Amino acid sequence: MEEVTNKYIAIKAKVDGIPKESDFEVKTEQFSLSVKPGSNDIIIKNLYVSIDPYQINRMKTASASQKTSNYAVAIAPGEVIDAYGVGKVVASGNPQFEKGDYVVGMISWGEYSISQGLILSKLDPMGLPLSYHVGVLGFSGLTAYAGFFEVCKPKKGEKVFVSAASGSVGNLVGQYAKSLGCYVVGCAGSTKKVELLKETLGFDEAFNYKEETDLHSTLERYFPEGIDIYFDNVGAEMLDAAVSNMNLYGRIAVCGVISEYLDAGKRAAPDMLSVIYKRINIRGFLAGDYMNLFPEFVSTTVDHIQTGKIHVLEDVSSGIESIPSAFLGLFSGSNVGKKIVKLSDE
Amino acid sequence: MEEVTNKYIAIKAKVDGIPKESDFEVKTEQFSLSVKPGSNDIIIKNLYVSIDPYQINRMKTASASQKTSNYAVAIAPGEVIDAYGVGKVVASGNPQFEKGDYVVGMISWGEYSISQGLILSKLDPMGLPLSYHVGVLGFSGLTAYAGFFEVCKPKKGEKVFVSAASGSVGNLVGQYAKSLGCYVVGCAGSTKKVELLKETLGFDEAFNYKEETDLHSTLERYFPEGIDIYFDNVGAEMLDAAVSNMNLYGRIAVCGVISEYLDAGKRAAPDMLSVIYKRINIRGFLAGDYMNLFPEFVSTTVDHIQTGKIHVLEDVSSGIESIPSAFLGLFSGSNVGKKIVKLSDE
Repeated sequence: MEEVTNKYIAIKAKVDGIPKESDFEVKTEQFSLSVKPGSNDIIIKNLYVSIDPYQINRMKTASASQKTSNYAVAIAPGEVIDAYGVGKVVASGNPQFEKGDYVVGMISWGEYSISQGLILSKLDPMGLPLSYHVGVLGFSGLTAYAGFFEVCKPKKGEKVFVSAASGSVGNLVGQYAKSLGCYVVGCAGSTKKVELLKETLGFDEAFNYKEETDLHSTLERYFPEGIDIYFDNVGAEMLDAAVSNMNLYGRIAVCGVISEYLDAGKRAAPDMLSVIYKRINIRGFLAGDYMNLFPEFVSTTVDHIQTGKIHVLEDVSSGIESIPSAFLGLFSGSNVGKKIVKLSDE
Repeated sequence: MEEVTNKYIAIKAKVDGIPKESDFEVKTEQFSLSVKPGSNDIIIKNLYVSIDPYQINRMKTASASQKTSNYAVAIAPGEVIDAYGVGKVVASGNPQFEKGDYVVGMISWGEYSISQGLILSKLDPMGLPLSYHVGVLGFSGLTAYAGFFEVCKPKKGEKVFVSAASGSVGNLVGQYAKSLGCYVVGCAGSTKKVELLKETLGFDEAFNYKEETDLHSTLERYFPEGIDIYFDNVGAEMLDAAVSNMNLYGRIAVCGVISEYLDAGKRAAPDMLSVIYKRINIRGFLAGDYMNLFPEFVSTTVDHIQTGKIHVLEDVSSGIESIPSAFLGLFSGSNVGKKIVKLSDE
C-alpha cells in the first residue's frame, strides 16, 4: 500500500477577528494512495484549489453560516479544510470515477484529498485551462450567473451596481450584465482595479470606494437615473448607500458581506422606509440552490469566453504554503479576480 | 349656490420628530355644495375617515416616502390633508357618481371634500357597517391580505410572526394566517392587547414587547422551530431579532417601520450573513400595487367576517376635532385595531 506524506493547511485555533498568517499551520500526515478494499473512496491529487472569503465564517467560534447551512459547517482546528477545486484521481473504489480522471468539486487545502464522491464530478476540461473550472466555470461563476440572472431578474438597459467588482464573483456579474446590455458600474479598492474594470472588463464606470467620503452622493453621481439592481458583495455602508439610490422595484442580491466578516459589530442599517416605498426586494442566496442551472451556465459562459464577451480574471499563486497568504490577501484586497492556488502540475 | 363652513385639520408647519397636539389646527373655509357648471367634480360629505401612521412621513420636511411614491406626497402646512375614508355624494358633475351615492377612497381629514374621481369608487355597503369599508375592507385590509398572501406566499402550518399585531394591519395578518392554518405569534405594547390577541383573535401566542429585555431570546422562546414568515410593521430591533430567528427560505414583508418614523436615526441592522445563509427574502410593498386583488380580497374577507373567522377590530372616535389626538395615539399605542374617526351620521 503506497503511502505519501500529505501536506495540508489547518487553523491552529478558532479565528475570530482579523486573520493572520500565524493562525495557520502546514501540517503533515501519512496518506495512503490506495483505496481500502470494499470502500467507495476516491483518492485525489489536488491540482488547483479555490480561495474564498466565506471560509472565514467557518473558522470563527460561532457564525450564522455554521448554524444554518451545510455549505459552511465549522472548521475544526488541526483538521483538513475542504474547499472547491480541481484534481486528478489517483485511485478509486467508486465505479463512477477511475484513475486518471479529472474531477471538480469539494477537495481540500492540501496536496491530496479523499472523497466519498459527494459534491464531486468528473471534469471534461473542454480544452480550457483547468483553473477556469475552479473559478469562472466553477462555483464563483455559478454564483455570479444564478445571482444575477435568477435572483436579480435583469432586463436589458437596466442600471446595475456591483461591489467588490474585481473579485471572483463581482467581475463576472459585471460582465454578464454588460453582455445583456445593462449600464454597469463597479466599485473596487484601488486605482489599478478601477482601470481594469473599465478598460479590460468593459464596465461603463468604476470607482475606488477608498477615495470616496460620502457613498450616498458617490452613487448618486454614478447613477443619475438610479440603480435598478445592486449585487452586494460587501454589506455595511455600501448597502445603505445603494438602498437610498435604488429605483422603484429595485432588486438587491445579497451574495457576500465581506466588510462585515471581520467585524461582527459592523452592520448595514438600510432605510427601511425606502425599502417600503420603493418596493425593494433584498434577497440572500447561495449558488448551491441553483445546481440545476449548471449546464446552462457552463455552456453560456464557455461561449462568452470564446467570443471574448467574458475576460477571465484569475490570480494564481503556487504551492500549498502560499494558501494562508492567498487567503489573507482576500481581506486586504490584494487579489485581482478569482484567487486560486496551484498545488501541482498535472 | 349653497355654501357651508367646512372644518378641516391641517398642520401648522412641517412636523419633524414626535408630533404633538399643537402641531395641528382646525381650520375653516367657505365650501360650495354645488358643482361648477361643466366641472367633473364630486362634492362629498365625509362620514368616516382613516387615521394611519404613514401620514407622519408626509408631514416631515423630507422623507423617503415623499420622494419616491405618489402614495405619500408631502402635506403642505395649512392645506387640506387627503385620507382614505367613506362619504356620501352631495353633488356630482361626474356621470359615474350621483347625489346620495356612498363612496370610498381618497377623501380628507375634513367635514366635506371635493374629488375629481381619482382613487374614489361607488360603495355598496353590502349590509355591513360603513366603518368596515374604511378598515377591514379598505386599504388596511388590502395591505394585510396582499402583504400576507402575495408577498409572503404562506403555506399551511408555517410559523408566522406579526409585529404591531393589534394594529390595523397586523391584527388582520394574524387572522388571515390563522384562517390558513399557520402557527401565529403577535407582539403588542400592553397586557390588554396581548390578551385580546390570544383570547379574541385566536393568535397561538402573543407577548408585550415592552416587558422583554432581549428580543432575540424572546423570539427563540416563542418560535422553538424558527420563524418562516415575519410581517414587519415596526422595523428596528424587532427586525434584527426576527432575522436571527428566521428559518431557511424565510420571508419578511416590510409593511411599516413605525418605531423608526419618529426617529430617523433609529434603524434596523439585520445580520446580513444570516440573510445569505438562510436565503431570506426581505421585501417592501405597498397595497396600491395589488388593486387587482381588491374583488378577491373583499369577497374572501366578507366571507371570513360572516363565518366569524375574522373578528373586526375597530377603534372609532367622533368628530373632526378628535383627529389630531386620534393620530397622536397611533404613536403612543393607544389605539386597539383600526383607528377611525366618525365625522357625521349618515
